[in-house]
Amino acid sequence: MRPALRPESTAAREPLYARLASELRRQIDAGVLRAGDRLPSIRALRRSRGVSAATAVETYLTLERDGYVRARDRSGFYVTQPLSRLVGEPRVEGTLVPPVPVGIAQLAADVLRQLCDATLVPLGASALGAALLPSGRLNRAIRRIAARQPDHSAFYGPLRGHFALRRQLARHGFTLGFTSAPDDIIVTSGGMEALNLAIRAVARPGEVIAVESPTYFGVLVLMGSLGLRAVEIPTDPRKGMNLDLLERAIRRHRVKAVISMTTCHNPLGFVMDDAAKADLVELAARHDTAIIEDGVYGDLVYDDVRRRPAKAFDRRGLVLYCASFSKSLAPGLRVGWVEAGRFGARVEALKSITSIVAPALPQLAVAELLESGFYGRYVRRIRLRLADQMRQYIHAVTEAFPADTLMTRPAGGNLLWLQLPSNVDGTALYRRALDLGISVFPGEIFSNDGKYQNFVRLSCGTPWSPAMERAIGTLGRLSRELADKRPLQRRRG
Amino acid sequence: MRPALRPESTAAREPLYARLASELRRQIDAGVLRAGDRLPSIRALRRSRGVSAATAVETYLTLERDGYVRARDRSGFYVTQPLSRLVGEPRVEGTLVPPVPVGIAQLAADVLRQLCDATLVPLGASALGAALLPSGRLNRAIRRIAARQPDHSAFYGPLRGHFALRRQLARHGFTLGFTSAPDDIIVTSGGMEALNLAIRAVARPGEVIAVESPTYFGVLVLMGSLGLRAVEIPTDPRKGMNLDLLERAIRRHRVKAVISMTTCHNPLGFVMDDAAKADLVELAARHDTAIIEDGVYGDLVYDDVRRRPAKAFDRRGLVLYCASFSKSLAPGLRVGWVEAGRFGARVEALKSITSIVAPALPQLAVAELLESGFYGRYVRRIRLRLADQMRQYIHAVTEAFPADTLMTRPAGGNLLWLQLPSNVDGTALYRRALDLGISVFPGEIFSNDGKYQNFVRLSCGTPWSPAMERAIGTLGRLSRELADKRPLQRRRG
Repeated sequence: MRPALRPESTAAREPLYARLASELRRQIDAGVLRAGDRLPSIRALRRSRGVSAATAVETYLTLERDGYVRARDRSGFYVTQPLSRLVGEPRVEGTLVPPVPVGIAQLAADVLRQLCDATLVPLGASALGAALLPSGRLNRAIRRIAARQPDHSAFYGPLRGHFALRRQLARHGFTLGFTSAPDDIIVTSGGMEALNLAIRAVARPGEVIAVESPTYFGVLVLMGSLGLRAVEIPTDPRKGMNLDLLERAIRRHRVKAVISMTTCHNPLGFVMDDAAKADLVELAARHDTAIIEDGVYGDLVYDDVRRRPAKAFDRRGLVLYCASFSKSLAPGLRVGWVEAGRFGARVEALKSITSIVAPALPQLAVAELLESGFYGRYVRRIRLRLADQMRQYIHAVTEAFPADTLMTRPAGGNLLWLQLPSNVDGTALYRRALDLGISVFPGEIFSNDGKYQNFVRLSCGTPWSPAMERAIGTLGRLSRELADKRPLQRRRG
Repeated sequence: MRPALRPESTAAREPLYARLASELRRQIDAGVLRAGDRLPSIRALRRSRGVSAATAVETYLTLERDGYVRARDRSGFYVTQPLSRLVGEPRVEGTLVPPVPVGIAQLAADVLRQLCDATLVPLGASALGAALLPSGRLNRAIRRIAARQPDHSAFYGPLRGHFALRRQLARHGFTLGFTSAPDDIIVTSGGMEALNLAIRAVARPGEVIAVESPTYFGVLVLMGSLGLRAVEIPTDPRKGMNLDLLERAIRRHRVKAVISMTTCHNPLGFVMDDAAKADLVELAARHDTAIIEDGVYGDLVYDDVRRRPAKAFDRRGLVLYCASFSKSLAPGLRVGWVEAGRFGARVEALKSITSIVAPALPQLAVAELLESGFYGRYVRRIRLRLADQMRQYIHAVTEAFPADTLMTRPAGGNLLWLQLPSNVDGTALYRRALDLGISVFPGEIFSNDGKYQNFVRLSCGTPWSPAMERAIGTLGRLSRELADKRPLQRRRG
């Protein structure tokens, strides 16, 4: 397929690192630098171009995010396969639509049912492949707890969760960039329950919540079941939510809360800049609007530059930070948590009437993996593997899909968001793929107003293999067949 | 303290077993039969009185439920301590109050916070003492799973729960008296989540649900948070909900569902007769009203006569049967389930946006305990221990509390419901007891209209000990102090 890259910007006001990255990109595209070549060291780049260390680092990280180079532990940055042949990125669509009540989408329910089906090629549900997960180490922790704390499950335990875990989560929050006490934290049954409690703590039926567009469909379906209305804020695949439009929506619709996935967005894969996060928090504070920050992918950023969550910029307790270990450690553990700022008491009360407390054993196991330092070492490893793996998926999609397919460049996580040719129905692709034993998620469920009908989301959490390559090939072929056929019938919007 | 038994009924239409039981009770009260004496065998009673085996059995079970006799394994029924000195039972209050919106009670939130406090004497939160729970066997199951299914938590697993558990739950349902397929069952994070999903599946904000009065406060608080209105149905401490008043409420208020704890009611401890359960189901079917049957204490009936849940009489899929292993096996496992009849798909969809799936390890552990037959043997043992233990608590309350205290005669479970003298504020007792390190639950939270202000609930799940005896003594002293003081200020109602 032919390249569909955006034209290189030559604007003089482009930051220095971006200009340097462009230069290097051109060298790679031109074959001056080839796959496997080592880029100059940071020190060498500083000397040769007279730039600061920060600029040099940012230059290489930009190239890495774009898939042009890859860091190898302690030995520098290396050129990956030539990426000029990769597909372009989808762009943000810029209109603001008034809030609508969210309906429990039958399609989302059908899609979710695939969570269970181990016979499908797993490109649908967002999860890392079992081979990547530290099951051995986890079981060691579990056996240790069974031996040393045999009465682990003989009590309800504290409403907010076991102290051993909350202490570790407070430490973990500190490494993420915010300061919490163990008592500020409420342990939940995974990230979904955390979102559930956070949403119910800040909004009542009929009220409006602002969400990114596209956004995680679970949140839309949940809001529908609670009688809440969603106003969808156009969201840039690289930068995140359009804050001007968000402010306009807040002014117009008395928005009670903003739900934002600031780090490794589902499905777009971006990480918001710290400055944008600070702006988001400031904006919310100005309007006394709560922020529900969904950080479930927070530990899966590919590069080593720790970006802070919006919670780190929160001075007024307006941010409810929700996270879990389902995306990084083990989906079947169901260990999530929320640091709910000023809404802590309300979240605790809601937790008690939702599932009373979280189960003890998974909590204690995660606490052990955090306390021993294992988890920190493990996520550093897994992030690199995931970045590699994502590159392979991106290449395969480039090969297999129709030429005018566009695709995100995730900065972390395991999700790819594909914009198919405008006449290809992503839901038809989802159905045909399912018939062939392949699970993907249709883009349609990631918005309430039908605007992503020609999109699909791929989960690239399973290690690359010939089977995955074949599945991507099949998806590409199905897409081409759909593209050759009929014009797409818009169902909504 | 002086006896406050209800006068013996001499009505000729009283069933034969009740008349026989009265006779024997008088013999015991008169000292003809003494503590430790063995009653005639079933066969001997049949011969001597010319009654059927069923009548003979029912006679002895009635005496057992009243605390007059106790069955010993395979050797017959023995007289317990003379119970003529025991306090009487509270009576049902008979009025029907229009449905009111339920508010999240601050008091209930305060009370629930005691779940966590291991330093308190545990007469509040409803749970069996850790010494009664089979932690060793549970840990063996857990270690076995860690060894044989090391990837247990590496997947989300099926939305409805792991098949291994659902298969065992279907078998368990069969022993309870109803027939379900594994796919009819949805595993939840404990009984509270099961109730949560069931309620949200059948009613929308603003709608009316009928509940027993008194009822489990968690349900009232949950309904409040969902904007539902409760109509409270007067409920007899022995027989359960007044079905005539229920029907009147359904006619008046377009009731969407009835929540009923038919077996080992919280807080009243009764087990509804099978005939009454059948009537309840028939009544609900007539009005196309759903029944949410809360069976969390279902395995803790003291006697061996298996009574069936209302679900067993359901021909139209109107009963959502909710249960859990928190009350019988381990509160910290958080394994519950719901067989939602015709509402299965809706409950499944709600589960997926509440906590996605239940955690794997506790599910697999419970499946193993059911499959191996351990659980069945264990609950048979624990039921007898619990019945014994309850008798000790009842005697101690009789000794310690003011003379005009009334008290239920639980047919199962671990809960005692005390009606204090009319001027004693149960919430004041709760607060003073808390100051002295003793946890009890104030009756006030078991209704929405303040009618149980002079009640408290005691959990008698902890094995009897001098420490528990001291605590009951202290509660009695505090009650007497409160009774001597001031008239009670009604806060609501």
